[in-house]
Amino acid sequence: MHPMFESLEHILQPRSVAVVGASRRAGSIGAEVFRNLVNTGFTGPVYPVNQSAQVVQEVRAFESLLQIPGDVDLAVIVVPKDKVLAVVDDCITKGVKGIVVLTAGFGELGVDGRALQDQVRARVLSHGIRMIGPNCLGVLNTHPDVQLNATFAPNWPPRGNVAIASQSGAVGLALLDYARHLGIGISQFVSMGNKVDVSGNDLIEYWEQDDETRVIALYLESLGNPKRFMQLAGRVSRTKPIVVVKSGRTEAGARAAASHTGALAGMDIAVDALFYQAGVLRTDTAEELFDLVTLLSNQPVPKGNRVAILTNAGGPGIMASDACETRGLTMAKLTDETVTTLRAVLPPEAAVNNPVDMIASAPAKSYEQCLQTLLADEGVDVVLVLFVPPLVTDAVSVSESICRAVNGTEKTVLVCLLGTDAVHGGEALLRAAHVPTYRFPEAAIVALASAVRYRHFLERPRGVAQTPSGIDEDAAKAVMDRARARGKGWLTGDETRGLLEAYGVRMPRTAIANSRKEAADVAADMGYPVALKLLSRSITHKTEVNGVHLGVGGPTDLARAYEAIEEGARATGIPNAMDGVLVQQMIVGGVEMYVGMTEAAAFGALVAFGAGGIAVEVYRDVAFRVHPLTDVDARDMLEPVRAQVLLRGFRGKPPADEPALLDAILRIDHLIATFPEVREMDVNPLVALPAGEGVIALDARVRVG
Amino acid sequence: MHPMFESLEHILQPRSVAVVGASRRAGSIGAEVFRNLVNTGFTGPVYPVNQSAQVVQEVRAFESLLQIPGDVDLAVIVVPKDKVLAVVDDCITKGVKGIVVLTAGFGELGVDGRALQDQVRARVLSHGIRMIGPNCLGVLNTHPDVQLNATFAPNWPPRGNVAIASQSGAVGLALLDYARHLGIGISQFVSMGNKVDVSGNDLIEYWEQDDETRVIALYLESLGNPKRFMQLAGRVSRTKPIVVVKSGRTEAGARAAASHTGALAGMDIAVDALFYQAGVLRTDTAEELFDLVTLLSNQPVPKGNRVAILTNAGGPGIMASDACETRGLTMAKLTDETVTTLRAVLPPEAAVNNPVDMIASAPAKSYEQCLQTLLADEGVDVVLVLFVPPLVTDAVSVSESICRAVNGTEKTVLVCLLGTDAVHGGEALLRAAHVPTYRFPEAAIVALASAVRYRHFLERPRGVAQTPSGIDEDAAKAVMDRARARGKGWLTGDETRGLLEAYGVRMPRTAIANSRKEAADVAADMGYPVALKLLSRSITHKTEVNGVHLGVGGPTDLARAYEAIEEGARATGIPNAMDGVLVQQMIVGGVEMYVGMTEAAAFGALVAFGAGGIAVEVYRDVAFRVHPLTDVDARDMLEPVRAQVLLRGFRGKPPADEPALLDAILRIDHLIATFPEVREMDVNPLVALPAGEGVIALDARVRVG
Repeated sequence: MHPMFESLEHILQPRSVAVVGASRRAGSIGAEVFRNLVNTGFTGPVYPVNQSAQVVQEVRAFESLLQIPGDVDLAVIVVPKDKVLAVVDDCITKGVKGIVVLTAGFGELGVDGRALQDQVRARVLSHGIRMIGPNCLGVLNTHPDVQLNATFAPNWPPRGNVAIASQSGAVGLALLDYARHLGIGISQFVSMGNKVDVSGNDLIEYWEQDDETRVIALYLESLGNPKRFMQLAGRVSRTKPIVVVKSGRTEAGARAAASHTGALAGMDIAVDALFYQAGVLRTDTAEELFDLVTLLSNQPVPKGNRVAILTNAGGPGIMASDACETRGLTMAKLTDETVTTLRAVLPPEAAVNNPVDMIASAPAKSYEQCLQTLLADEGVDVVLVLFVPPLVTDAVSVSESICRAVNGTEKTVLVCLLGTDAVHGGEALLRAAHVPTYRFPEAAIVALASAVRYRHFLERPRGVAQTPSGIDEDAAKAVMDRARARGKGWLTGDETRGLLEAYGVRMPRTAIANSRKEAADVAADMGYPVALKLLSRSITHKTEVNGVHLGVGGPTDLARAYEAIEEGARATGIPNAMDGVLVQQMIVGGVEMYVGMTEAAAFGALVAFGAGGIAVEVYRDVAFRVHPLTDVDARDMLEPVRAQVLLRGFRGKPPADEPALLDAILRIDHLIATFPEVREMDVNPLVALPAGEGVIALDARVRVG
Repeated sequence: MHPMFESLEHILQPRSVAVVGASRRAGSIGAEVFRNLVNTGFTGPVYPVNQSAQVVQEVRAFESLLQIPGDVDLAVIVVPKDKVLAVVDDCITKGVKGIVVLTAGFGELGVDGRALQDQVRARVLSHGIRMIGPNCLGVLNTHPDVQLNATFAPNWPPRGNVAIASQSGAVGLALLDYARHLGIGISQFVSMGNKVDVSGNDLIEYWEQDDETRVIALYLESLGNPKRFMQLAGRVSRTKPIVVVKSGRTEAGARAAASHTGALAGMDIAVDALFYQAGVLRTDTAEELFDLVTLLSNQPVPKGNRVAILTNAGGPGIMASDACETRGLTMAKLTDETVTTLRAVLPPEAAVNNPVDMIASAPAKSYEQCLQTLLADEGVDVVLVLFVPPLVTDAVSVSESICRAVNGTEKTVLVCLLGTDAVHGGEALLRAAHVPTYRFPEAAIVALASAVRYRHFLERPRGVAQTPSGIDEDAAKAVMDRARARGKGWLTGDETRGLLEAYGVRMPRTAIANSRKEAADVAADMGYPVALKLLSRSITHKTEVNGVHLGVGGPTDLARAYEAIEEGARATGIPNAMDGVLVQQMIVGGVEMYVGMTEAAAFGALVAFGAGGIAVEVYRDVAFRVHPLTDVDARDMLEPVRAQVLLRGFRGKPPADEPALLDAILRIDHLIATFPEVREMDVNPLVALPAGEGVIALDARVRVG
């Protein structure tokens, strides 16, 4: 038995429960939670504990936990907050294994509440008791061997394979209610409250082991330990999909709006990166959460993104096709065989391309025949069936027909019944056959697109940590020692160059020359074209004295430019104005990209890759990943970046050196790993030269702290 | 009486109706539509016409329309398609004023059906009869003086102020059903079918005059006459909001994906532009359509975008805040007075900032007190009230409390009741008080954001057509005459320059020089820096012979560059290789933008404005407007373009010359108006120089046809 499973079992599968604060007062939380436990038919004993009442809801009450004759696995605490500590002490004495504290007034109120909360926490932890809450709605387990409803929610949900945890009690209530309304079966439900002990991470680990749970649905407002969440969720989501609504984007929105590139990665961006890497499916709303959960808990994960649409009306078919395209799904191209079969079954007015429009007069039987045909097509991964109740066919017989067709298929099928009262009977039939139903096609497609993303995650190779070769650790360390000795802040230009070059990321060569000959030698060595710039302590505006020459293409040009600089400096009349020239390698061609690093609190370092120059600021054309990266992560970061098209040979230009770009990303990632004192880093632009020519950083900055 | 109103009145407010094809066979369309007319209590006589049956549903039937004793305003035709023409002839003979053809099998089936359809159309039009359909679900009017249900839809919707037209019968059915489910009151409903005569445009014009209709909701798959739609909708939406679901984006999606900038404007982009200019509110889905319609048909249009959120639970408050920010709304900053009042009313644990979290124990009365306080705050335009049913308060008393608070307010109030069965009673109360309710906060906010966009439209000045000054029409005409004489295709570089310059859009100056002296004179005239380029018929690769010198900064530099070109040409050994030099004005600084024009079928010309260079292709950072533009349109096009930040002084650069940019947009718009043979046009980049320095087009192309 996994230790996490064992420790939480006392809470989610207790053999006995005491409600401390069980009340006679109807409508009070202490009354409702006790009533729920009794009414739902909890399989073990439920003990009411009440300091003053002898009987609570026809059950003999105990004055204290300590008076209960048998063992108590789980204590549900509903007493006023100033009595919680004493009850916790009783729990310790009694040997209670798990505690759920419904009482509010703790950490959520700020400093005062937090002090009390810390005391509770310290006692519980030091005695190895697991605790949920405080400030929560309770816990629930629908398994017939348990039948635990230790919540004050008014309804008992249907049994099923979806586990739900909510950080907000109110949202938890709404989720339970809505799930019941939609007929979504729940395995267990936990309202996490202030997460003083048991966290979302713990529950993910618990549900990983729980055979009753196939899909994990979470409402989160914060991630207490993002790194652990990433590790756990990344593992668990390989076998059980994790669907999350994460709210609290507001602050993140404000941060993301900061114009500073280094501050690009607000918290929400970090959350998105983490979820992506861990295969966690984020939905925007609670409605979308359930649309997705109902699909994943009932149907196979789609094998791919090729969708066939079967409908009895044109309009909804068009709406569904639009939604497919908008959400990145593909309308399946039907084989000739499929088209021939459909043609034989359907009247001549029907459309046998995709969407297949059987027209309004289609009998229920056509649904069976056509759906079977589409499911047999190798080019189809998913079928979305649409039905608008017309006069000739009723939703029940259509649903029966659909149920027959899907029997035994390994492909994903979703149904959209466009109606309310007229389709309830059909809806119930389809649900019983594990075919998810939706009211409008768009909602079905949004859910489907997320399920396809989950397929992509499952198929994504796990990736391997990389150690780039040829890193000069000593040189890098020397630079960092020097920088550290100076204190926090930005590295100098030379330090930055030294650090990057030690990590194998080159920058344009640059050299000082004191004569025309020297400049020519240096330029010949670094290769033309070069830039030639006046070096002068006394002349500020070098351009005005003709002191800057870009694109110097060869020795003759260089000679002329050098003379022009000399002449310009002379013409100022300042004696010895010229201290020499700066010769800089000029980079011609290539594509300007961006690689950066920023910190996002408990998430740690994020690596950023995107379009270079100002595009990163203007278009936010940048992808983030949580450090450290694997080879797969690095390759994967290129995909969402729209400027990627520039790398693949844009408008007749040669394709860029993508392997070198990936290598550079991994080198920068390695640098971050080696020097955790790096707080922020921008390499912008990082020019990706044509294939085989590598990459070169034109500008970079590194901040340590 | 407006002629459109009068002509459609016979269909939507008939005094008598004949159902030709009224049937005895239960479940047939001919039976259902007749039954609906009778059961709904149509206020005039309903005549069944049936060739064989003497009685239809207890009513004496007529063998033909011609045998009906009284006048027939409206004939509903349900006969097989090969009999429709004969019935139309009867209608003409009988003097029927309006026809609704439910029968399918016409234009929607392609060529064959279209021939029959054209015949029907010709007869109807030539006799001044108005016709809806064919291939439709029928029409419906809930007014108690009419009570017309000439559809075969199974349900009769509640009466209200929303008029609905649907191009798809199936979607129409679903909309009617869903509206009834949500309690949205309908004034009239029209299923438009193949739109052979009466179009969406006609209905908009009709509903403009209809006192019963406050909101117009449309499901469209195509716009038959976009220009008329724009004109009509632009007028009508000033007084009655028009909300549209427009499907059929798929083809547009494919077109929008074309890499060619000129093909950027797919149909859907044209639709979006047109809707924006006309103030039409587009929603993505039918659900969102109703979410918005229920708001607009019940509440005042929001005065602004400052939202206060009142909740009894933290989680939903956070969700709503997130949604506000995501959708471009602002969380209102409450005044000190408001905060003080709230503080006095609420317990200390409550949060009195925005969102105002009254906590779960809040009694119903708190809703009234707090909502009144928020509505009195001058910084609040809209209040979203959230309620999660807890134990202590029920949805009915909360709803009563909300109803009291909103009584008499002119501000917009939305309510989200997070629950299903537990909130039905409250929902009904709020609906009766014209307070729209939602199940989840996000849906409420999405609707609200659209309503705020409508407010922006209402407040947007109407704009004035502009005639830019100083246009050399003769010069432009000369260029176009020359181009036209050559046939269809792209203008030459010189023609393009000539055309743009005639319209006051300058391009960099360029000149040919045959000596060093001449080059220097020309350069001095046009101003440094310039580019100097070898002109040679015999040398192809000019860069390789040092023939291209960019950024020539002054006379000395120019002399050297000229000599270098001479030397390079000489070194090739080709006699008389040098034909002179090209001197080109170089543009330094400024921001590269894009102005273009493309055609979108019946929409006509679209004007495009966006980021210049490759950003227009990579980021689609471009806004479209339907030509011709007003001054307001031009200014308005800047807003959605993200590269706009570059114009406003980015990273310490000077702000760009926006007035000159707007002027250039209007000049190009005027060019398009004057020369309708222009089929496509790209000015890219159009450099916006620092304020006061104007704009200059570095490159442009114009296609005529």
